[in-house]
Amino acid sequence: MDFGIVAFPRKDVQDTANSFRKRYDPHYTFIPPHITLKEKFTADEEDLSHIVPKLSKIAKESQPFTIQINKVSHFHPVTSTIYLAIDEQKPLHDLHQKIHDIFPNTDHPYEFIPHVTIGQKMREEELHDVYGRLRMQTFDLFSIIDRFHLMYQLENKSWSIHQSFIFSDL
Amino acid sequence: MDFGIVAFPRKDVQDTANSFRKRYDPHYTFIPPHITLKEKFTADEEDLSHIVPKLSKIAKESQPFTIQINKVSHFHPVTSTIYLAIDEQKPLHDLHQKIHDIFPNTDHPYEFIPHVTIGQKMREEELHDVYGRLRMQTFDLFSIIDRFHLMYQLENKSWSIHQSFIFSDL
Repeated sequence: MDFGIVAFPRKDVQDTANSFRKRYDPHYTFIPPHITLKEKFTADEEDLSHIVPKLSKIAKESQPFTIQINKVSHFHPVTSTIYLAIDEQKPLHDLHQKIHDIFPNTDHPYEFIPHVTIGQKMREEELHDVYGRLRMQTFDLFSIIDRFHLMYQLENKSWSIHQSFIFSDL
Repeated sequence: MDFGIVAFPRKDVQDTANSFRKRYDPHYTFIPPHITLKEKFTADEEDLSHIVPKLSKIAKESQPFTIQINKVSHFHPVTSTIYLAIDEQKPLHDLHQKIHDIFPNTDHPYEFIPHVTIGQKMREEELHDVYGRLRMQTFDLFSIIDRFHLMYQLENKSWSIHQSFIFSDL
């Protein structure tokens, strides 16, 4: 079964992201707007019985933090993805690293840049057009991140939820 | 904000349900196949701070159980919904009742019949046609239910996840 680990920003950030994703993201209906912490990986029931307690431990040792979103950015020419850029990246980098460390045999395919995708698999012309319109726009969004979620993918490519992991609120 | 409480059956049940929902359920892309335990309700942040600990307590006091799915059924003429019928209903009834009891001022609009919707808002003719084809079919599906999920609805009608509540595995 294929799994992924994500954090969902607060509802108004998801609603803003969806207002763009509806037009520009072919994964719009597969999963709500999210910050990917661990890309898709394959695991069976037994793997899961090892992974879940480790994720619980990471969550228990983490504390809620706030992210700010002020602008859009893009990954072109690596991929034709446009995203809401996250200002304060360190706590997400730390969380990503801790999660990554429990999967010893996986590579980082890309440098980790935490983001909320609003468009992907775009034609180059469309990407430049949309980015050109949005790059001067200032967003004033924030979200507390106090949990992450282990998701699994169904046959139709959409994602269902296995479990949420909530940070210590000390 | 609008919330709902659901249990997701195991992946193969969700995949089977989606193979029908794709054609017959206009909510197909809004949420994965699920058993509704508490219909949509409105709550603010403060309500949530009371509801979440109560849901945690219910989950901690619940134990995993298995459901069997052998056939389809329908709610016609009350609603034009077709669903995967759940054989062993008592543990779901008990869970539904416990969850319902923490919301003192809500009515039961319908008798609670736990089900996994595979088609809804169907034209009467189509409902009879689909049910006629599926009623003789035997399904041999089961799922352990060992958790439920508190979901919230985004502006585009799709559902995002707030938190999962996992049963005691005593």
